[in-house]
Amino acid sequence: MISGEPARWKREGGRVLASTRVLELRSVRFRHPVRGTEEDFVIAHAPDWVNVVALTPDSRLVLVRQFRFGSNDLSLEIPGGVSEAGEDPVAAGLRELSEETGYGGGVPSLLGSVHPNPAIQDNSCHFVLVTGAVPVGPVKWDRDEEIEVSTAPVDEVLAWARTGRITHSLTVAALMLFEGTRRI
Amino acid sequence: MISGEPARWKREGGRVLASTRVLELRSVRFRHPVRGTEEDFVIAHAPDWVNVVALTPDSRLVLVRQFRFGSNDLSLEIPGGVSEAGEDPVAAGLRELSEETGYGGGVPSLLGSVHPNPAIQDNSCHFVLVTGAVPVGPVKWDRDEEIEVSTAPVDEVLAWARTGRITHSLTVAALMLFEGTRRI
Repeated sequence: MISGEPARWKREGGRVLASTRVLELRSVRFRHPVRGTEEDFVIAHAPDWVNVVALTPDSRLVLVRQFRFGSNDLSLEIPGGVSEAGEDPVAAGLRELSEETGYGGGVPSLLGSVHPNPAIQDNSCHFVLVTGAVPVGPVKWDRDEEIEVSTAPVDEVLAWARTGRITHSLTVAALMLFEGTRRI
Repeated sequence: MISGEPARWKREGGRVLASTRVLELRSVRFRHPVRGTEEDFVIAHAPDWVNVVALTPDSRLVLVRQFRFGSNDLSLEIPGGVSEAGEDPVAAGLRELSEETGYGGGVPSLLGSVHPNPAIQDNSCHFVLVTGAVPVGPVKWDRDEEIEVSTAPVDEVLAWARTGRITHSLTVAALMLFEGTRRI
């Protein structure tokens, strides 16, 4: 083992390999600060994402179920989506919650943030907690969204995250952070 | 809300947008089973990944800290990596644990699996639990790996996942599943 801290490579220039609606694939050159060598690494550039833990007054969590094109299957998740440029994470969370489920109101706060994949992605995913969430209006789906909205008791949802009924890693991570707040 | 289950789109052909060492970006055509319309969606194809919760006989977890090119920062995580083609998840986990940290031995089992990002990725990440992990040999790093290996008490690591010292979403999700096993 190399003693001390791992080196922090210095990021140099990069170039776009492919640009799409959801992410931009880049080849980015990094220089090793000690060895001085340079190498290219692949990075997926994406906007920040937001996921929402919405807790109803009767201690249920708001869930969405939809077809996911990556896994080619239906997926049970907490609501979420893509932050718009310059958008505050809590505002983004409330917007996505409202658009996907029609829920809102209550008290929002930032639960925490993670890196979806620090090895190859440069973005963060913010987790927003909304307590006292209630139905407040109609949903507003994108053209290709068909979402089954439901609620389930908190303890059931936490169990589903641990036993494979919920498989989206960001939903699982959000529930880990949420569970921590219930012990305080 | 559309009544009943969201439609399962039918996957048709696709084409490669960019092929790299870590993932292949594809444009894949899907057909809506009811509307009959077709549309292209971007999917990142990647091999399955594996992450390892390695518990030492004195109830500490094995951690790695390394520079991550996506987040452009050092990151504290559990060991992990890419499964090789046809490799059993538990075998892949033991191999990555040994290569990255020199730990091994003990009793391995599959803790569970998640989709890192079912919206745009087609792969799974498997979580492997190794109880009774001990140092068994030298590490075997790839050319660009510099890894700081450490151990910390389980409860501290779980707290770090909830309070932002650990930010890799897959490590957070793995710890969520691991914590569930401690209550049985």
